[in-house]
Amino acid sequence: MVNPTAAIVVIGDEILSGRTRDANMHHLAGVLTEAGIDLREARVIADDADKIISVIQTLSQEMDYVFTSGGIGPTHDDITADCIAKAFARPIDIRDDARRILQDYYDRTGVALNEARLRMARIPDGAELIENPVSGAPGFILENVYVMAGVPRIFQAMVASVLPGLTGGTPLVSRAVDIHKGEGDIAPVLTQLAEKFPKLSIGSYPFQREGKFGSNVVVRGANSQEVDQVIASLKEQLL
Amino acid sequence: MVNPTAAIVVIGDEILSGRTRDANMHHLAGVLTEAGIDLREARVIADDADKIISVIQTLSQEMDYVFTSGGIGPTHDDITADCIAKAFARPIDIRDDARRILQDYYDRTGVALNEARLRMARIPDGAELIENPVSGAPGFILENVYVMAGVPRIFQAMVASVLPGLTGGTPLVSRAVDIHKGEGDIAPVLTQLAEKFPKLSIGSYPFQREGKFGSNVVVRGANSQEVDQVIASLKEQLL
Repeated sequence: MVNPTAAIVVIGDEILSGRTRDANMHHLAGVLTEAGIDLREARVIADDADKIISVIQTLSQEMDYVFTSGGIGPTHDDITADCIAKAFARPIDIRDDARRILQDYYDRTGVALNEARLRMARIPDGAELIENPVSGAPGFILENVYVMAGVPRIFQAMVASVLPGLTGGTPLVSRAVDIHKGEGDIAPVLTQLAEKFPKLSIGSYPFQREGKFGSNVVVRGANSQEVDQVIASLKEQLL
Repeated sequence: MVNPTAAIVVIGDEILSGRTRDANMHHLAGVLTEAGIDLREARVIADDADKIISVIQTLSQEMDYVFTSGGIGPTHDDITADCIAKAFARPIDIRDDARRILQDYYDRTGVALNEARLRMARIPDGAELIENPVSGAPGFILENVYVMAGVPRIFQAMVASVLPGLTGGTPLVSRAVDIHKGEGDIAPVLTQLAEKFPKLSIGSYPFQREGKFGSNVVVRGANSQEVDQVIASLKEQLL
Protein backbone atom coordinates (compact mmCIF):
# COMPACT_ATOMS: atom_id res chain seq x y z
CA MET A 1 0.00 0.00 0.00
CA VAL A 2 1.22 3.46 -0.86
CA ASN A 3 0.91 6.13 1.82
CA PRO A 4 -1.22 9.22 1.21
CA THR A 5 0.72 12.26 0.02
CA ALA A 6 0.66 15.85 1.24
CA ALA A 7 2.08 19.31 0.62
CA ILE A 8 2.20 22.40 2.77
CA VAL A 9 1.95 25.94 1.41
CA VAL A 10 3.24 28.60 3.77
CA ILE A 11 1.77 31.94 2.74
CA GLY A 12 3.41 35.14 3.85
CA ASP A 13 5.85 37.86 2.85
CA GLU A 14 7.36 37.78 6.35
CA ILE A 15 8.97 34.37 5.80
CA LEU A 16 10.43 35.32 2.42
CA SER A 17 11.80 38.61 3.74
CA GLY A 18 13.61 36.82 6.55
CA ARG A 19 11.63 38.61 9.27
CA THR A 20 10.16 35.37 10.58
CA ARG A 21 11.58 31.86 10.60
CA ASP A 22 8.90 29.37 9.64
CA ALA A 23 7.97 26.85 12.30
CA ASN A 24 4.78 25.37 10.85
CA MET A 25 6.39 23.35 8.09
CA HIS A 26 8.67 21.63 10.55
CA HIS A 27 5.82 20.93 12.98
CA LEU A 28 3.55 19.51 10.28
CA ALA A 29 6.39 17.38 8.87
CA GLY A 30 6.81 15.60 12.19
CA VAL A 31 3.08 15.09 12.75
CA LEU A 32 2.45 13.72 9.24
CA THR A 33 5.43 11.37 9.38
CA GLU A 34 4.03 9.85 12.56
CA ALA A 35 0.63 9.48 10.89
CA GLY A 36 2.06 7.68 7.87
CA ILE A 37 1.31 10.54 5.47
CA ASP A 38 4.19 11.46 3.14
CA LEU A 39 4.92 15.18 3.09
CA ARG A 40 6.22 15.43 -0.47
CA GLU A 41 6.69 19.15 -0.90
CA ALA A 42 6.66 22.42 1.00
CA ARG A 43 6.36 25.82 -0.59
CA VAL A 44 6.69 29.29 0.80
CA ILE A 45 4.99 31.93 -1.33
CA ALA A 46 4.18 35.63 -0.95
CA ASP A 47 0.79 37.26 -0.27
CA ASP A 48 0.12 37.34 -4.02
CA ALA A 49 -3.36 36.28 -5.14
CA ASP A 50 -2.47 34.83 -8.56
CA LYS A 51 0.40 32.85 -7.11
CA ILE A 52 -1.67 31.46 -4.23
CA ILE A 53 -4.48 30.42 -6.58
CA SER A 54 -2.22 28.65 -9.08
CA VAL A 55 -0.13 26.87 -6.43
CA ILE A 56 -3.28 25.62 -4.67
CA GLN A 57 -4.79 24.38 -7.92
CA THR A 58 -1.59 22.54 -8.87
CA LEU A 59 -0.92 20.93 -5.51
CA SER A 60 -4.53 20.00 -4.82
CA GLN A 61 -4.43 17.95 -8.05
CA GLU A 62 -1.06 16.35 -7.29
CA MET A 63 -1.49 15.51 -3.61
CA ASP A 64 -3.99 13.75 -1.38
CA TYR A 65 -3.83 16.57 1.16
CA VAL A 66 -2.77 20.21 0.97
CA PHE A 67 -2.25 22.26 4.12
CA THR A 68 -1.91 26.02 4.11
CA SER A 69 -0.57 28.27 6.83
CA GLY A 70 -1.07 32.04 7.06
CA GLY A 71 -3.15 34.85 5.63
CA ILE A 72 -6.49 34.28 7.37
CA GLY A 73 -6.41 37.20 9.83
CA PRO A 74 -8.36 40.49 9.78
CA THR A 75 -5.97 42.76 7.86
CA HIS A 76 -5.72 43.83 4.21
CA ASP A 77 -2.93 41.36 3.45
CA ASP A 78 -4.99 38.38 4.66
CA ILE A 79 -6.22 37.11 1.31
CA THR A 80 -5.91 33.33 1.66
CA ALA A 81 -9.62 32.53 2.14
CA ASP A 82 -10.65 34.51 -0.94
CA CYS A 83 -7.88 32.91 -3.00
CA ILE A 84 -8.92 29.39 -1.99
CA ALA A 85 -12.51 30.19 -2.96
CA LYS A 86 -11.30 31.43 -6.37
CA ALA A 87 -9.05 28.39 -6.83
CA PHE A 88 -12.15 26.16 -6.63
CA ALA A 89 -14.58 28.65 -8.23
CA ARG A 90 -16.71 28.80 -5.08
CA PRO A 91 -18.64 31.83 -3.83
CA ILE A 92 -17.34 33.33 -0.59
CA ASP A 93 -19.01 35.61 1.94
CA ILE A 94 -19.44 36.07 5.67
CA ARG A 95 -20.98 32.82 6.86
CA ASP A 96 -23.41 32.66 9.77
CA ASP A 97 -21.75 29.72 11.50
CA ALA A 98 -18.35 31.42 11.43
CA ARG A 99 -19.84 34.75 12.48
CA ARG A 100 -21.49 33.06 15.47
CA ILE A 101 -18.16 31.52 16.56
CA LEU A 102 -16.46 34.91 16.35
CA GLN A 103 -19.34 36.66 18.15
CA ASP A 104 -19.16 34.12 21.00
CA TYR A 105 -15.39 34.45 21.24
CA TYR A 106 -15.36 38.26 21.28
CA ASP A 107 -18.33 38.43 23.67
CA ARG A 108 -16.33 36.26 26.07
CA THR A 109 -13.21 38.38 25.74
CA GLY A 110 -15.07 41.72 25.77
CA VAL A 111 -13.74 42.84 22.39
CA ALA A 112 -15.87 44.37 19.63
CA LEU A 113 -16.58 42.23 16.56
CA ASN A 114 -15.93 45.06 14.11
CA GLU A 115 -15.85 45.05 10.31
CA ALA A 116 -12.19 44.04 10.14
CA ARG A 117 -12.70 41.05 12.45
CA LEU A 118 -15.79 40.04 10.49
CA ARG A 119 -13.51 39.43 7.51
CA MET A 120 -12.41 36.32 9.40
CA ALA A 121 -15.95 34.94 9.00
CA ARG A 122 -15.53 34.94 5.21
CA ILE A 123 -15.63 31.22 4.38
CA PRO A 124 -16.13 29.65 0.94
CA ASP A 125 -19.44 27.88 0.27
CA GLY A 126 -19.29 24.21 1.16
CA ALA A 127 -16.19 24.46 3.34
CA GLU A 128 -16.07 22.73 6.71
CA LEU A 129 -14.81 24.87 9.62
CA ILE A 130 -11.68 24.05 11.63
CA GLU A 131 -11.87 24.97 15.29
CA ASN A 132 -9.48 27.58 16.69
CA PRO A 133 -9.32 27.17 20.47
CA VAL A 134 -6.71 29.92 20.78
CA SER A 135 -8.20 33.01 19.17
CA GLY A 136 -11.65 32.13 17.87
CA ALA A 137 -11.35 32.74 14.13
CA PRO A 138 -11.78 29.36 12.42
CA GLY A 139 -9.82 27.76 9.62
CA PHE A 140 -11.60 25.64 7.03
CA ILE A 141 -11.40 22.57 4.82
CA LEU A 142 -12.39 22.88 1.15
CA GLU A 143 -11.99 19.83 -1.10
CA ASN A 144 -8.62 18.41 0.00
CA VAL A 145 -7.20 21.76 1.17
CA TYR A 146 -6.84 22.51 4.89
CA VAL A 147 -6.63 26.25 5.49
CA MET A 148 -5.03 27.16 8.80
CA ALA A 149 -3.58 30.14 10.66
CA GLY A 150 0.06 31.21 10.46
CA VAL A 151 0.62 31.91 14.17
CA PRO A 152 2.37 28.69 15.26
CA ARG A 153 0.33 28.13 18.42
CA ILE A 154 -2.92 28.38 16.45
CA PHE A 155 -1.57 26.35 13.54
CA GLN A 156 -0.58 23.55 15.90
CA ALA A 157 -3.98 23.55 17.60
CA MET A 158 -5.71 23.36 14.22
CA VAL A 159 -3.45 20.52 13.06
CA ALA A 160 -4.31 18.62 16.24
CA SER A 161 -8.00 19.11 15.58
CA VAL A 162 -7.95 17.93 11.93
CA LEU A 163 -5.52 15.07 12.43
CA PRO A 164 -8.08 12.45 13.56
CA GLY A 165 -10.02 13.06 10.33
CA LEU A 166 -7.08 12.33 8.03
CA THR A 167 -6.60 8.94 6.45
CA GLY A 168 -3.15 7.91 7.56
CA GLY A 169 -0.95 5.24 6.08
CA THR A 170 1.65 2.98 7.57
CA PRO A 171 3.71 5.10 9.94
CA LEU A 172 7.36 4.87 9.05
CA VAL A 173 9.73 3.36 11.53
CA SER A 174 12.85 5.44 11.91
CA ARG A 175 16.10 4.41 13.61
CA ALA A 176 19.39 6.23 13.68
CA VAL A 177 22.97 5.43 14.54
CA ASP A 178 25.95 7.75 14.96
CA ILE A 179 29.05 6.58 13.12
CA HIS A 180 32.26 8.36 14.02
CA LYS A 181 33.53 8.35 10.48
CA GLY A 182 33.14 10.85 7.67
CA GLU A 183 30.41 10.36 5.09
CA GLY A 184 33.05 9.65 2.48
CA ASP A 185 34.23 6.59 4.43
CA ILE A 186 30.82 5.06 4.98
CA ALA A 187 29.31 5.85 1.57
CA PRO A 188 30.13 2.47 -0.04
CA VAL A 189 28.40 0.55 2.76
CA LEU A 190 25.36 2.85 2.55
CA THR A 191 25.13 2.42 -1.21
CA GLN A 192 25.29 -1.37 -0.88
CA LEU A 193 22.54 -1.41 1.78
CA ALA A 194 20.37 1.04 -0.18
CA GLU A 195 20.57 -1.30 -3.18
CA LYS A 196 19.79 -4.36 -1.07
CA PHE A 197 16.79 -2.69 0.63
CA PRO A 198 15.22 -0.53 -2.08
CA LYS A 199 12.08 0.19 -0.04
CA LEU A 200 13.98 1.80 2.83
CA SER A 201 15.23 5.34 2.90
CA ILE A 202 18.81 5.52 4.18
CA GLY A 203 20.09 9.02 4.78
CA SER A 204 23.33 10.23 6.29
CA TYR A 205 23.81 13.59 7.95
CA PRO A 206 27.34 14.75 8.67
CA PHE A 207 28.21 16.32 12.00
CA GLN A 208 31.29 17.68 13.69
CA ARG A 209 31.81 17.19 17.42
CA GLU A 210 34.93 18.16 19.31
CA GLY A 211 36.71 18.67 16.02
CA LYS A 212 35.93 15.17 14.70
CA PHE A 213 33.68 14.39 11.76
CA GLY A 214 30.91 11.86 12.04
CA SER A 215 27.68 10.87 10.33
CA ASN A 216 24.24 10.36 11.76
CA VAL A 217 22.72 7.61 9.63
CA VAL A 218 18.93 7.48 9.61
CA VAL A 219 17.09 4.44 8.29
CA ARG A 220 13.35 4.80 7.62
CA GLY A 221 10.73 2.47 6.26
CA ALA A 222 7.42 0.75 6.86
CA ASN A 223 9.01 -2.63 7.60
CA SER A 224 10.57 -2.43 11.07
CA GLN A 225 12.36 -5.76 10.71
CA GLU A 226 14.19 -4.54 7.63
CA VAL A 227 15.04 -1.27 9.38
CA ASP A 228 16.50 -3.20 12.33
CA GLN A 229 18.43 -5.46 9.97
CA VAL A 230 20.06 -2.46 8.26
CA ILE A 231 20.91 -0.79 11.57
CA ALA A 232 22.52 -4.04 12.78
CA SER A 233 24.48 -4.34 9.55
CA LEU A 234 25.66 -0.72 9.80
CA LYS A 235 26.88 -1.31 13.35
CA GLU A 236 28.63 -4.52 12.39
CA GLN A 237 30.41 -3.03 9.40
CA LEU A 238 31.15 0.47 10.62
CA LEU A 239 31.33 0.72 14.42
CA MET B 1 13.53 49.80 -11.36
CA VAL B 2 12.32 46.36 -10.42
CA ASN B 3 14.53 44.32 -8.12
CA PRO B 4 15.97 40.99 -9.31
CA THR B 5 13.99 37.93 -8.24
CA ALA B 6 15.13 34.70 -6.63
CA ALA B 7 13.95 31.32 -5.41
CA ILE B 8 15.52 28.76 -3.12
CA VAL B 9 15.11 25.02 -3.51
CA VAL B 10 15.92 23.03 -0.39
CA ILE B 11 16.61 19.44 -1.39
CA GLY B 12 16.36 16.68 1.18
CA ASP B 13 14.10 14.03 2.64
CA GLU B 14 15.27 14.97 6.13
CA ILE B 15 13.44 18.32 6.08
CA LEU B 16 10.17 16.79 4.81
CA SER B 17 10.29 13.96 7.37
CA GLY B 18 10.65 16.46 10.21
CA ARG B 19 14.07 15.14 11.24
CA THR B 20 15.78 18.45 10.52
CA ARG B 21 14.44 21.98 10.72
CA ASP B 22 15.60 23.98 7.74
CA ALA B 23 17.85 26.92 8.52
CA ASN B 24 19.16 27.80 5.05
CA MET B 25 15.96 29.31 3.68
CA HIS B 26 15.75 31.70 6.60
CA HIS B 27 19.41 32.64 6.31
CA LEU B 28 19.21 33.29 2.57
CA ALA B 29 15.99 35.29 2.97
CA GLY B 30 17.73 37.77 5.27
CA VAL B 31 20.84 38.08 3.09
CA LEU B 32 18.89 38.62 -0.14
CA THR B 33 16.55 41.19 1.42
CA GLU B 34 19.58 43.21 2.47
CA ALA B 35 20.98 42.94 -1.04
CA GLY B 36 17.77 44.17 -2.66
CA ILE B 37 16.99 40.80 -4.28
CA ASP B 38 13.38 39.66 -3.88
CA LEU B 39 13.10 36.09 -2.64
CA ARG B 40 9.80 35.19 -4.28
CA GLU B 41 9.48 31.52 -3.49
CA ALA B 42 11.02 28.73 -1.45
CA ARG B 43 10.47 25.06 -2.07
CA VAL B 44 11.44 22.00 -0.11
CA ILE B 45 11.51 18.85 -2.20
CA ALA B 46 12.67 15.27 -1.69
CA ASP B 47 15.78 13.54 -3.07
CA ASP B 48 13.82 12.62 -6.21
CA ALA B 49 15.59 13.13 -9.54
CA ASP B 50 12.55 13.88 -11.74
CA LYS B 51 11.21 16.36 -9.22
CA ILE B 52 14.54 18.15 -8.80
CA ILE B 53 15.01 18.44 -12.56
CA SER B 54 11.53 19.82 -13.26
CA VAL B 55 11.56 22.27 -10.35
CA ILE B 56 14.97 23.62 -11.42
CA GLN B 57 13.85 24.00 -15.03
CA THR B 58 10.69 25.86 -14.00
CA LEU B 59 12.28 28.19 -11.47
CA SER B 60 15.36 28.94 -13.55
CA GLN B 61 12.98 30.27 -16.25
CA GLU B 62 10.83 32.25 -13.82
CA MET B 63 13.50 33.82 -11.61
CA ASP B 64 16.70 35.80 -12.05
CA TYR B 65 18.49 33.62 -9.50
CA VAL B 66 17.87 30.11 -8.16
CA PHE B 67 19.72 28.83 -5.11
CA THR B 68 19.78 25.19 -4.09
CA SER B 69 20.75 23.69 -0.77
CA GLY B 70 21.58 20.04 -0.14
CA GLY B 71 22.42 16.83 -1.94
CA ILE B 72 26.04 17.46 -2.99
CA GLY B 73 27.82 15.14 -0.55
CA PRO B 74 29.51 11.77 -1.16
CA THR B 75 26.64 9.33 -0.50
CA HIS B 76 24.13 7.53 -2.74
CA ASP B 77 21.33 10.04 -1.99
CA ASP B 78 23.44 13.02 -3.10
CA ILE B 79 22.05 13.46 -6.59
CA THR B 80 21.74 17.22 -6.94
CA ALA B 81 24.78 17.81 -9.22
CA ASP B 82 23.69 15.14 -11.69
CA CYS B 83 20.12 16.50 -11.70
CA ILE B 84 21.27 20.06 -12.39
CA ALA B 85 23.39 18.78 -15.30
CA LYS B 86 20.35 16.96 -16.70
CA ALA B 87 18.10 19.99 -16.20
CA PHE B 88 20.38 21.95 -18.55
CA ALA B 89 21.34 19.00 -20.78
CA ARG B 90 25.03 19.35 -19.88
CA PRO B 91 27.53 16.51 -19.61
CA ILE B 92 28.83 15.84 -16.10
CA ASP B 93 31.92 14.04 -14.89
CA ILE B 94 34.74 14.33 -12.38
CA ARG B 95 36.39 17.62 -13.21
CA ASP B 96 40.12 18.18 -12.76
CA ASP B 97 39.78 21.55 -11.03
CA ALA B 98 37.34 20.15 -8.48
CA ARG B 99 39.42 17.01 -7.99
CA ARG B 100 42.47 19.16 -7.29
CA ILE B 101 40.58 21.15 -4.64
CA LEU B 102 39.43 17.94 -2.95
CA GLN B 103 42.91 16.39 -3.16
CA ASP B 104 44.46 19.48 -1.53
CA TYR B 105 41.82 19.50 1.19
CA TYR B 106 42.14 15.81 2.04
CA ASP B 107 45.93 15.91 1.84
CA ARG B 108 45.86 18.70 4.44
CA THR B 109 43.47 16.79 6.72
CA GLY B 110 45.15 13.40 6.22
CA VAL B 111 42.03 11.70 4.88
CA ALA B 112 41.92 9.45 1.81
CA LEU B 113 40.27 10.84 -1.32
CA ASN B 114 38.38 7.63 -2.06
CA GLU B 115 35.83 6.85 -4.74
CA ALA B 116 32.87 8.09 -2.68
CA ARG B 117 34.53 11.44 -1.99
CA LEU B 118 35.49 11.75 -5.65
CA ARG B 119 31.76 11.91 -6.43
CA MET B 120 31.95 15.41 -5.01
CA ALA B 121 34.22 16.40 -7.91
CA ARG B 122 31.41 15.65 -10.38
CA ILE B 123 30.65 19.07 -11.83
CA PRO B 124 28.63 19.84 -14.98
CA ASP B 125 30.50 21.16 -18.03
CA GLY B 126 30.71 24.92 -18.05
CA ALA B 127 29.84 25.41 -14.40
CA GLU B 128 31.83 27.80 -12.24
CA LEU B 129 32.97 26.44 -8.86
CA ILE B 130 31.88 27.92 -5.53
CA GLU B 131 34.51 27.78 -2.81
CA ASN B 132 33.84 25.73 0.32
CA PRO B 133 36.19 26.94 3.08
CA VAL B 134 34.66 24.53 5.63
CA SER B 135 34.98 21.07 4.13
CA GLY B 136 36.62 21.39 0.72
CA ALA B 137 33.97 20.02 -1.66
CA PRO B 138 32.91 22.91 -3.90
CA GLY B 139 29.46 24.04 -4.96
CA PHE B 140 28.94 25.42 -8.44
CA ILE B 141 27.07 27.93 -10.57
CA LEU B 142 25.41 26.78 -13.80
CA GLU B 143 23.37 29.30 -15.80
CA ASN B 144 21.46 31.18 -13.09
CA VAL B 145 21.45 28.28 -10.61
CA TYR B 146 23.69 28.37 -7.52
CA VAL B 147 24.24 24.87 -6.16
CA MET B 148 25.30 24.82 -2.52
CA ALA B 149 25.67 22.44 0.41
CA GLY B 150 22.91 21.65 2.90
CA VAL B 151 24.99 21.81 6.08
CA PRO B 152 24.13 25.32 7.35
CA ARG B 153 27.69 26.36 8.15
CA ILE B 154 28.84 25.43 4.65
CA PHE B 155 25.74 26.89 3.01
CA GLN B 156 26.33 30.20 4.76
CA ALA B 157 30.00 30.30 3.75
CA MET B 158 29.04 29.61 0.13
CA VAL B 159 26.36 32.33 0.19
CA ALA B 160 28.94 34.78 1.49
CA SER B 161 31.32 33.85 -1.29
CA VAL B 162 28.79 34.23 -4.15
CA LEU B 163 27.05 37.34 -2.80
CA PRO B 164 29.49 39.91 -4.23
CA GLY B 165 28.87 38.47 -7.70
CA LEU B 166 25.08 38.93 -7.59
CA THR B 167 23.42 41.95 -9.14
CA GLY B 168 21.47 43.46 -6.29
CA GLY B 169 18.63 45.94 -6.47
CA THR B 170 17.47 48.66 -4.14
CA PRO B 171 17.67 47.26 -0.62
CA LEU B 172 14.33 47.58 1.10
CA VAL B 173 14.08 49.78 4.16
CA SER B 174 12.15 48.08 6.92
CA ARG B 175 10.78 49.71 10.06
CA ALA B 176 8.50 48.22 12.68
CA VAL B 177 6.34 49.47 15.50
CA ASP B 178 4.57 47.52 18.26
CA ILE B 179 0.94 48.52 18.71
CA HIS B 180 -0.72 47.23 21.86
CA LYS B 181 -4.00 46.59 20.13
CA GLY B 182 -5.37 43.53 18.36
CA GLU B 183 -5.04 43.25 14.59
CA GLY B 184 -8.81 43.62 14.30
CA ASP B 185 -8.65 47.10 15.83
CA ILE B 186 -5.85 48.43 13.67
CA ALA B 187 -6.90 46.81 10.39
CA PRO B 188 -8.87 49.84 9.05
CA VAL B 189 -5.88 52.15 9.52
CA LEU B 190 -3.56 49.61 7.87
CA THR B 191 -5.91 49.23 4.91
CA GLN B 192 -6.11 53.00 4.45
CA LEU B 193 -2.31 53.38 4.55
CA ALA B 194 -1.79 50.41 2.23
CA GLU B 195 -4.10 52.06 -0.31
CA LYS B 196 -2.38 55.44 0.04
CA PHE B 197 1.12 53.91 -0.34
CA PRO B 198 0.69 51.09 -2.87
CA LYS B 199 4.45 50.61 -3.33
CA LEU B 200 5.04 49.79 0.33
CA SER B 201 4.44 46.45 1.96
CA ILE B 202 2.64 46.85 5.29
CA GLY B 203 2.36 43.67 7.31
CA SER B 204 1.04 43.07 10.79
CA TYR B 205 2.04 40.18 13.01
CA PRO B 206 -0.02 39.48 16.10
CA PHE B 207 1.64 38.73 19.43
CA GLN B 208 0.53 38.01 22.94
CA ARG B 209 2.55 39.32 25.91
CA GLU B 210 1.53 39.02 29.52
CA GLY B 211 -1.92 37.96 28.41
CA LYS B 212 -2.49 41.03 26.19
CA PHE B 213 -2.77 40.98 22.43
CA GLY B 214 -0.73 43.29 20.28
CA SER B 215 0.50 43.64 16.70
CA ASN B 216 3.97 44.17 15.36
CA VAL B 217 3.47 46.27 12.24
CA VAL B 218 6.28 46.09 9.69
CA VAL B 219 6.53 48.62 6.87
CA ARG B 220 8.90 47.85 4.00
CA GLY B 221 9.77 49.60 0.81
CA ALA B 222 12.50 51.13 -1.32
CA ASN B 223 11.53 54.71 -0.45
CA SER B 224 12.65 55.38 3.12
CA GLN B 225 10.82 58.71 3.34
CA GLU B 226 7.51 56.98 2.58
CA VAL B 227 8.31 54.26 5.10
CA ASP B 228 9.00 56.88 7.78
CA GLN B 229 5.81 58.72 6.88
CA VAL B 230 3.72 55.57 7.35
CA ILE B 231 5.39 54.71 10.66
CA ALA B 232 4.73 58.27 11.90
CA SER B 233 1.12 58.03 10.80
CA LEU B 234 0.70 54.66 12.53
CA LYS B 235 2.08 56.07 15.78
CA GLU B 236 -0.12 59.15 15.54
CA GLN B 237 -3.30 57.20 14.91
CA LEU B 238 -2.75 54.11 17.00
CA LEU B 239 -0.37 54.68 19.90
